[in-house]
Amino acid sequence: MKFSLIPKEEQFFDLLDRMAQYIDESAAALDDLAKNYVDVDAKIARIGGIEHACDEVCHDCLDKLETTFITPLDREDIHELVLRLDDVVDMTTTAASRLPLYRIAQPRPRVMKLSAVIVEQGKLLVSAIKRLRNKSQYSMVSNDCVEIHRLENEADDIIREAIGELFEKETNAIELMRWKEIYETLETITDCGEDVANVIHGIVVKNA
Amino acid sequence: MKFSLIPKEEQFFDLLDRMAQYIDESAAALDDLAKNYVDVDAKIARIGGIEHACDEVCHDCLDKLETTFITPLDREDIHELVLRLDDVVDMTTTAASRLPLYRIAQPRPRVMKLSAVIVEQGKLLVSAIKRLRNKSQYSMVSNDCVEIHRLENEADDIIREAIGELFEKETNAIELMRWKEIYETLETITDCGEDVANVIHGIVVKNA
Amino acid sequence: MKFSLIPKEEQFFDLLDRMAQYIDESAAALDDLAKNYVDVDAKIARIGGIEHACDEVCHDCLDKLETTFITPLDREDIHELVLRLDDVVDMTTTAASRLPLYRIAQPRPRVMKLSAVIVEQGKLLVSAIKRLRNKSQYSMVSNDCVEIHRLENEADDIIREAIGELFEKETNAIELMRWKEIYETLETITDCGEDVANVIHGIVVKNA
Repeated sequence: MKFSLIPKEEQFFDLLDRMAQYIDESAAALDDLAKNYVDVDAKIARIGGIEHACDEVCHDCLDKLETTFITPLDREDIHELVLRLDDVVDMTTTAASRLPLYRIAQPRPRVMKLSAVIVEQGKLLVSAIKRLRNKSQYSMVSNDCVEIHRLENEADDIIREAIGELFEKETNAIELMRWKEIYETLETITDCGEDVANVIHGIVVKNA
Repeated sequence: MKFSLIPKEEQFFDLLDRMAQYIDESAAALDDLAKNYVDVDAKIARIGGIEHACDEVCHDCLDKLETTFITPLDREDIHELVLRLDDVVDMTTTAASRLPLYRIAQPRPRVMKLSAVIVEQGKLLVSAIKRLRNKSQYSMVSNDCVEIHRLENEADDIIREAIGELFEKETNAIELMRWKEIYETLETITDCGEDVANVIHGIVVKNA
Repeated sequence: MKFSLIPKEEQFFDLLDRMAQYIDESAAALDDLAKNYVDVDAKIARIGGIEHACDEVCHDCLDKLETTFITPLDREDIHELVLRLDDVVDMTTTAASRLPLYRIAQPRPRVMKLSAVIVEQGKLLVSAIKRLRNKSQYSMVSNDCVEIHRLENEADDIIREAIGELFEKETNAIELMRWKEIYETLETITDCGEDVANVIHGIVVKNA
């Protein structure tokens, strides 16, 4: 085991912060892809790079869990949190790569509306994770979680409208399927964000 | 913190009972919508009202978890149970609203068959949650859980038959997609019910 | 309670091993169905038989959890592990039965590619579960988990390519839907395998 001047406690929170940063970065990159749909392959490769970096931090964190005696939060909670954070970045990568995969020529306005919600949610995840170091901030962590849920509902409303419109107006079945899947995959990112918020809130509740 | 004559212990179980009641109510409302497909908007608004009321109890319960020192079950188990109960009502609302969203003119018989299964499952969830107060009833809680699983299998069989028929006879792709999604969303309610049963059974196992 | 010469500790691991064996068997049967698509009904009935046997062991294990005082792993972890193992066999049965359900005349090569990945993953699950008896083997359990994740990624790549091709070339919407669902259901088996690996790795981390 390497010698380190940073206490173990801080190291875990540093890794969690980094994972949250990757969520934030990948959300920004997805939003940029949706709004400026050029250099698509290069932009998706960049998101894939963020996912890969996030995976490495995820594995670091899981390895550290195996070899560290005392952890700042219950080990099973860190384990669950790390997996759920990783899911957000994974799903963001999946959503981005589905645009060219489903042969989308140009994202529709609602794709950008959804990516804007995803960016907002990412910033709240960064905030909630950062505040998790400090029990005096736990009520603010709960507030962040409430906001994350609210954004998931917002994404739900956007997608509901979008799909209603598709079933009303779209007569080309493949076109309908294509857009329905794109919207649903984007909305799933906010579900993954909500899953993280649920784990975070569970930690707050347990340690309150 | 407010002063209360009801012991904390009872308060949690009262809140869980109320959430289970909302599941029961929303299932009955969905069943009525399927069987009497008139005043659709008003009926869906009513289900939305139940969902909203359930959300409030859910948040009450989570808040109480943060401020209560001793809880009748492990805090993480109450947390998980509350989230999973909320999911059932959420999914019921989603399924109901998809009927007009997917431009369904008239629910087919299998929709009513599925809603009947959902009603039955809701009643078992009410029963299992009520019995959770009392360890002497834990073997009956386990029986309720087995029945909830059985109903999920029943829903599975209905949907399997329905989808086989669609892929055999339906030549209009949008029509196929429409009904497939309606059936699958209804079946997902019974999956959510099964998730609740799994959490309940986990609690029984832990405290046996 | 029956008298038994085998220590309780060993009995739980024996049951977990049997569930893993059923995963392995059902994966082999699915692979055979994909590669030799004859006697389809009989082959699917056989997979259904494996699922049924697995269900029984699952219930045995859950019953034993309720009546056993000391368990070799935390009761909630055994509970979660048993449910997730059962999910793999359930999903394998679902995927197999969807082939005739979706009126597939002949599985395409990618179906066989996916079933080969599922077979490999099943073998790793058997290995990881077997090694869980022995803490000295926990680092090898972690390695098995990493491999299981890798195979899930491999399945992801296969399906991504397959779906890209469908959206590029397939002009018949029902045909597109049919194959997309078949591929996705197969890929979900590897997601379920990954869920098992996550629970296993959580156990390793907790008991390290």
